[in-house]
Amino acid sequence: MGSTKGQVINCKAAVAWAPKQAFVIEEIQVAPPLASEVRIKITHTSVCHTDVSIWQIQELADVFPRIFGHEASGIVESVGEGVIDLQVGDHVIPIFQGECGDCTSCKSSKTNLCEEFTLNPGDGLMKTDRKTRFSIRGQPIFHFFGTSTFSEYTVIHRAQVVKVDPAAPLNKICLLGCGITTGVGAVLKTAKVEAGSTVAIFGLGAVGLAVAEGARIAGASKVIGVDINPRKFNKGKLWGITECLNPLEYDQPIHQVIQQKTGGGVDYSFECVGNVDVMRTAYDSCHKGWGVSVVVGVDTSSRKLLQLTPVELLEGRIWTGTVFGGIKGRSQLPELVDKYMKKELQIDEMITHTLPFSEINEALKLLIEGNSLRCVMHMHNSEH
Amino acid sequence: MGSTKGQVINCKAAVAWAPKQAFVIEEIQVAPPLASEVRIKITHTSVCHTDVSIWQIQELADVFPRIFGHEASGIVESVGEGVIDLQVGDHVIPIFQGECGDCTSCKSSKTNLCEEFTLNPGDGLMKTDRKTRFSIRGQPIFHFFGTSTFSEYTVIHRAQVVKVDPAAPLNKICLLGCGITTGVGAVLKTAKVEAGSTVAIFGLGAVGLAVAEGARIAGASKVIGVDINPRKFNKGKLWGITECLNPLEYDQPIHQVIQQKTGGGVDYSFECVGNVDVMRTAYDSCHKGWGVSVVVGVDTSSRKLLQLTPVELLEGRIWTGTVFGGIKGRSQLPELVDKYMKKELQIDEMITHTLPFSEINEALKLLIEGNSLRCVMHMHNSEH
Ligand SMILES: [Zn+2]
Ligand SMILES: [Zn+2]
Ligand SMILES: [Zn+2]
Ligand SMILES: [Zn+2]
Repeated sequence: MGSTKGQVINCKAAVAWAPKQAFVIEEIQVAPPLASEVRIKITHTSVCHTDVSIWQIQELADVFPRIFGHEASGIVESVGEGVIDLQVGDHVIPIFQGECGDCTSCKSSKTNLCEEFTLNPGDGLMKTDRKTRFSIRGQPIFHFFGTSTFSEYTVIHRAQVVKVDPAAPLNKICLLGCGITTGVGAVLKTAKVEAGSTVAIFGLGAVGLAVAEGARIAGASKVIGVDINPRKFNKGKLWGITECLNPLEYDQPIHQVIQQKTGGGVDYSFECVGNVDVMRTAYDSCHKGWGVSVVVGVDTSSRKLLQLTPVELLEGRIWTGTVFGGIKGRSQLPELVDKYMKKELQIDEMITHTLPFSEINEALKLLIEGNSLRCVMHMHNSEH
Repeated sequence: MGSTKGQVINCKAAVAWAPKQAFVIEEIQVAPPLASEVRIKITHTSVCHTDVSIWQIQELADVFPRIFGHEASGIVESVGEGVIDLQVGDHVIPIFQGECGDCTSCKSSKTNLCEEFTLNPGDGLMKTDRKTRFSIRGQPIFHFFGTSTFSEYTVIHRAQVVKVDPAAPLNKICLLGCGITTGVGAVLKTAKVEAGSTVAIFGLGAVGLAVAEGARIAGASKVIGVDINPRKFNKGKLWGITECLNPLEYDQPIHQVIQQKTGGGVDYSFECVGNVDVMRTAYDSCHKGWGVSVVVGVDTSSRKLLQLTPVELLEGRIWTGTVFGGIKGRSQLPELVDKYMKKELQIDEMITHTLPFSEINEALKLLIEGNSLRCVMHMHNSEH
């Protein structure tokens, strides 16, 4: 195959035509990257709950047809004008939380929330020209989170592309594009859990287990996992969770059980469900005076308020949230790749299924029904 | 006068007979201290908004007659059995947030919220025997916050009594019993403001000005004061506030004005009003990603929820609250007394009025009408 640089590429993508409607594998056209953009041959992608929850929002019906996907890996096919830090052949991980490097937040060591590349589920256009790079039979297809990895090729702004060690296996490190990094980062960057701390994790899906992995790396002394699905407990113990609690098995509220087991509450709690009531329970499970509760799960649909009154805030717990685990993608994600290569960070154990890209609707179903942690899809027939 | 040790003392106190009813100076009886208690000759007391707001709660009508007061200084008159760290003649400051020294929280460096001596506005009894030490014509008078300083003599548990440098003027350091410590501590202990930080303060009463004093000590680069009463701005500037904003003078919400003036928001904001809507504004005035908003004001009456949804929490601001500025009274308050003695901490400028104790209702009125920051009352005729 000759160089495709500057050419429109015809390839396969999973197109979502309307909210909640099964994806359709279609032949689409991918335009070349504009200035500051990169066109990437996606090699592997997985499905994350955020893809599902935003695909289901009826209010976003105007932003269809759309190509979802934000947890992936790939290889640079071509770069747009002015892109000098990425080149053809680089192995990369797309990041939905960009890092422009120039804004106040990028320059601050305290946050990863770049002010130029902010998350907006309703925005389906490229930042550069407010247009799309995808089309089908002349009709534009909207982007998602600036990544749109459910396509054999995609175009991404350079601020959302991380160059990684080419020795790292793309079929594994794709998971660093969202879930693993979110959970591990929430512990190490956002909460800054100290060795010996006690931790409670609400929701033992992929992100919750990644929080457990972060707690293990941080040297937590006790890691309590909470889920109403006891099938998740075996897996949880493999990830270093020292005690699993099913709220349905207790007469008293689970935060009271946790308080009793930990001398008043844990030092750190993480909500990985995205449910406002669970968030309150996670908050209450922290010790008064110093407990930190980090919201990791996203509740995209609800406008419900946090169930907390001002007087309760005076009890000295600390409430905050995190996106992408507080990790600055371009500058800090390579460290996690290195940790994986040095076997200091588990990823492989998160992959419960692999499928060819053509079976993406099956991958979606596995996730929605709670039967997979992560299903990694290989995009091109030569890979696995 | 001979020793009063072990004797009932007859003295004057300001008795509140019912919610919102003017105090009456009455001759009351003060029993000797039981084990672990101390009887204190109060030399000076001031009135704080919390006295007023709890005195006004109709639902607490059962806890009357009652002696309020929690910001004071005095001299130990006698000690109960087993009290070895305090003795007759010691100069002391009562603290409403006790420090038992033995519980998990007292042993943690992260909090001042002693688990044995917790704040309960509805509790009017001594911890030792669940009775009162005050009576009038044989009828018990309830305590308040374990301190009840609106009395010439009071009985307090030793965990709520701080021994201080006898060289420090009691008519000034009485303010360290609440307002000054709350504000200064919120900055130095709870938020841990770094030099060069930007700060916004909502509400420029005594506590708000004490926050400004804390910000000055911490080396803040910019201190924005917000109040709807512009009469407070002159005083604010004396306390190091670099810019005063009156929300009523702007068409746009004041948090947007603050964001524009500070490149996206301040590093730290402090709510010193006790209003749930102001709390939200203070939160929004912080920079995304790292801003810390500390609730200092107490909203005693409202069950209104904090106006925040989970998705907003993901913007990475940090919300917390503080009681007594996070200061452990018995072990850390003496440091603030030392700072005052070394002229590193302002107190005198907070005292806008002085009155004899007999005019306590006038002191109350001055505070409620916003005409005083602090009115210090001297309890015995020989003092001023
Ligand atoms: Zn995701
Ligand atoms: Zn940026
Ligand atoms: Zn007070
Ligand atoms: Zn204690």
